[in-house]
Amino acid sequence: MQTTALLASAPGQPLRSTPIDRRDLRPDDVDVRVTHCGVCHSDLHALRSTDAGAFPLVPGHEFVGEVAAVGSAVEGFAVGEAVAVGNIVDSCGACRMCLAEQQNMCEEFPTLTYGGRDRVDGTPTLGGYSGRYVVRERFVYHRPANLDPAAVAPLLCAGITVWEPMRAWGVGEGTRLGVVGLGGLGHLAVRLGRALGAEVTVFTTTAAKAADAERLGATSVVVSTDHEAMAAARSTIDLVIDTVAVRHDLAPYLRVLDLDGTLVTLGYLGPLSVDAMDLLTARRRLASSGSAGRRWTQDLLDFCGEHGIAADVEVLPASEVDVALDRLAANDVRYRFVLDLAELT
Amino acid sequence: MQTTALLASAPGQPLRSTPIDRRDLRPDDVDVRVTHCGVCHSDLHALRSTDAGAFPLVPGHEFVGEVAAVGSAVEGFAVGEAVAVGNIVDSCGACRMCLAEQQNMCEEFPTLTYGGRDRVDGTPTLGGYSGRYVVRERFVYHRPANLDPAAVAPLLCAGITVWEPMRAWGVGEGTRLGVVGLGGLGHLAVRLGRALGAEVTVFTTTAAKAADAERLGATSVVVSTDHEAMAAARSTIDLVIDTVAVRHDLAPYLRVLDLDGTLVTLGYLGPLSVDAMDLLTARRRLASSGSAGRRWTQDLLDFCGEHGIAADVEVLPASEVDVALDRLAANDVRYRFVLDLAELT
Repeated sequence: MQTTALLASAPGQPLRSTPIDRRDLRPDDVDVRVTHCGVCHSDLHALRSTDAGAFPLVPGHEFVGEVAAVGSAVEGFAVGEAVAVGNIVDSCGACRMCLAEQQNMCEEFPTLTYGGRDRVDGTPTLGGYSGRYVVRERFVYHRPANLDPAAVAPLLCAGITVWEPMRAWGVGEGTRLGVVGLGGLGHLAVRLGRALGAEVTVFTTTAAKAADAERLGATSVVVSTDHEAMAAARSTIDLVIDTVAVRHDLAPYLRVLDLDGTLVTLGYLGPLSVDAMDLLTARRRLASSGSAGRRWTQDLLDFCGEHGIAADVEVLPASEVDVALDRLAANDVRYRFVLDLAELT
Repeated sequence: MQTTALLASAPGQPLRSTPIDRRDLRPDDVDVRVTHCGVCHSDLHALRSTDAGAFPLVPGHEFVGEVAAVGSAVEGFAVGEAVAVGNIVDSCGACRMCLAEQQNMCEEFPTLTYGGRDRVDGTPTLGGYSGRYVVRERFVYHRPANLDPAAVAPLLCAGITVWEPMRAWGVGEGTRLGVVGLGGLGHLAVRLGRALGAEVTVFTTTAAKAADAERLGATSVVVSTDHEAMAAARSTIDLVIDTVAVRHDLAPYLRVLDLDGTLVTLGYLGPLSVDAMDLLTARRRLASSGSAGRRWTQDLLDFCGEHGIAADVEVLPASEVDVALDRLAANDVRYRFVLDLAELT
């Protein structure tokens, strides 16, 4: 089937509306008519790649839409249903991680929604900045119908990335949760943490975000450049979710942890360095997590439907994708751009 | 009161049998007649210090003996009772760590058994290589009478240092425990882990220690320089207790951890560096712990009494302390030297 996508043909080339092919449905495939796709920092990184082998590139790995068609063996979805797809579209299905529904850690590496390679026919995967997407049923999720679809899209990457550590570390009533950085991921971490019953402290370098943090549900806000405030926050947090996507000094965020507390960095930050003293003075732990598996993805969407939680988004038409990317690069968004893809077919 | 201790008067000086003063008993003090004291790597480090301020020095922070006298307010101990003392002899008693009985993390720093400073009179603390030791009741422990006192002494430092992470991480029936290094700490970790019901895998660079590891209770032994064996051990362990006391590459021991597993390094190793990929590929955690508080120290002694567990020791008279130190420096001990201090009065 042909569809239209926002495609960059080579390194340095802009995204242009371009016809692409989607595969014919396999028995376990779902054909999704994409209506909205979030704009993630990863999309920017991918577009800036100088590796010609990574092109042609269609970004987009947090999207929502409706089912346009289903393969002959699909049982969980029907045409017209509200669905969502995240950043993983397949995995080996056999390793211990897949069996634990942690496909994000698949030992043969999961198939990414774009920039990956289909496990059956070997073709490169092209992402959700597109009118249609064909994907294995196992990696399609039911989307709560009571929520604005545009605001749901970012749950599929930004949302699950903060939800996975919340579930893994059992955030619940009374947990003292710290969230470092109030951006696409951080603002959802605050909302979700609060809805789980946690006391949420936001650590931000931007004092101007304090009011917004409180609107989102933060119990308190600490400006992390204020050394006195950071000293006062020492040993007050059980779990810090650090959403800052570039390498930075972890020591200040370790020190706010109380006995047996954990600092979780998100995604691949390269080498992490900590001083043993910052760990052993309160038996603190350093961890990292990235994305999520099936285990907690539908769980997040159900939770959000039940609690009326979604992202704060600014919706732009597909034709303004360059505006979204430029403003995202300048951190000028509260808190996630979402592309309306209705004009693509 | 006067007693005799093994004392180094200045940097570079040997330990010599020397008269020292112990304070008159305060109401909450216990006067311990020391019979055996373990020889810890820390003792070697302290003796090698070039800081004149650290001398005169009496090492020794894992010792056993009997109560010789008690202060007027002591209620928990009577003259003649079998007791033990570890590496902490006081703490602030008021911070959140002390209130949690984790005096090892006292926010005002605990008073060490030697090389510390008494919180009441400000005098330097002199350690357990000594005929007598006067110590606050709170930091004296009941010693199981069914165990060889010499073999109990190392429990008070080597033992509690591995016991604390076992308790903190809930090692029990079926836990897949990894122990890195088979020395003073490691051999106790194997015994204790096995007694808790764990499957214990020992990681050692010394293939010749395999038989000994099995004798101690190890389920399996992996020679850590054997890359194939290490690859086969990937993702098989829940908790690694890494007893290696010098900086080393942590990556191989992170990679043997399964989903949500933790690597605990012991004591102060300075800056720790890990690659985020080794954490996030299985949501692994890095932690450090050091020593133990009252919370789990008596608990360990009771557990050892019940299960008949103690250290493998080589007992030398006080007069041969230099032999013990030299052989310890050469790693020539299985697994702990203990000084018999009966000749000191």
